[in-house]
Amino acid sequence: MYFSAQKDFKEREIAPGVRLRLTWGERLMMSFVSLQPNSVVGNHRHPHEQMGTVLKGEVEMVIGGKARVVREGEAYLVPSNVEHSARSFDKPALALDIFSPPREDYK
Amino acid sequence: MYFSAQKDFKEREIAPGVRLRLTWGERLMMSFVSLQPNSVVGNHRHPHEQMGTVLKGEVEMVIGGKARVVREGEAYLVPSNVEHSARSFDKPALALDIFSPPREDYK
Repeated sequence: MYFSAQKDFKEREIAPGVRLRLTWGERLMMSFVSLQPNSVVGNHRHPHEQMGTVLKGEVEMVIGGKARVVREGEAYLVPSNVEHSARSFDKPALALDIFSPPREDYK
Repeated sequence: MYFSAQKDFKEREIAPGVRLRLTWGERLMMSFVSLQPNSVVGNHRHPHEQMGTVLKGEVEMVIGGKARVVREGEAYLVPSNVEHSARSFDKPALALDIFSPPREDYK
């Protein structure tokens, strides 16, 4: 399927207040990440390379021990197996994560 | 580098009125695509898998002969070597393309 709308995406809640909407191909996975205010994705790592951007609001990312508040139009890169975490502040936020290869645990 | 802002991205104009801002890792490339009104990215194909979404405005994508107007929050998938094109309408638009592997011709 070449085109998909939000109703077609797979949904998954990965932490309290953190909901994913997922779509993927053979090599790529897109994950729209909705964060309620003051939500946390705890420190973790995976072999998949991850990049992303913030679509609405602000998200603090900590990647390999480096913290940054990421805003709309900025980008982040999580190399394979580097520890990272994320949190929102007092407003909701929306980020887009992308993975290669797709995360089997999210399908 | 884990974090990047728009000033850090590589810029490239690929067609009249179509400007890319690029950032990439080992397996992933993100391309923020700014389209001026009535701009066209002609039919082409490449072995890289491509996905994407529209961040602002509307973009008509034709993928494998199927046309769709893609709007904010919707997604598209261009499998390896499938022909595709894109165009904007009478307003500017902003899309995010992602590629795996990164496109060497865009670095």
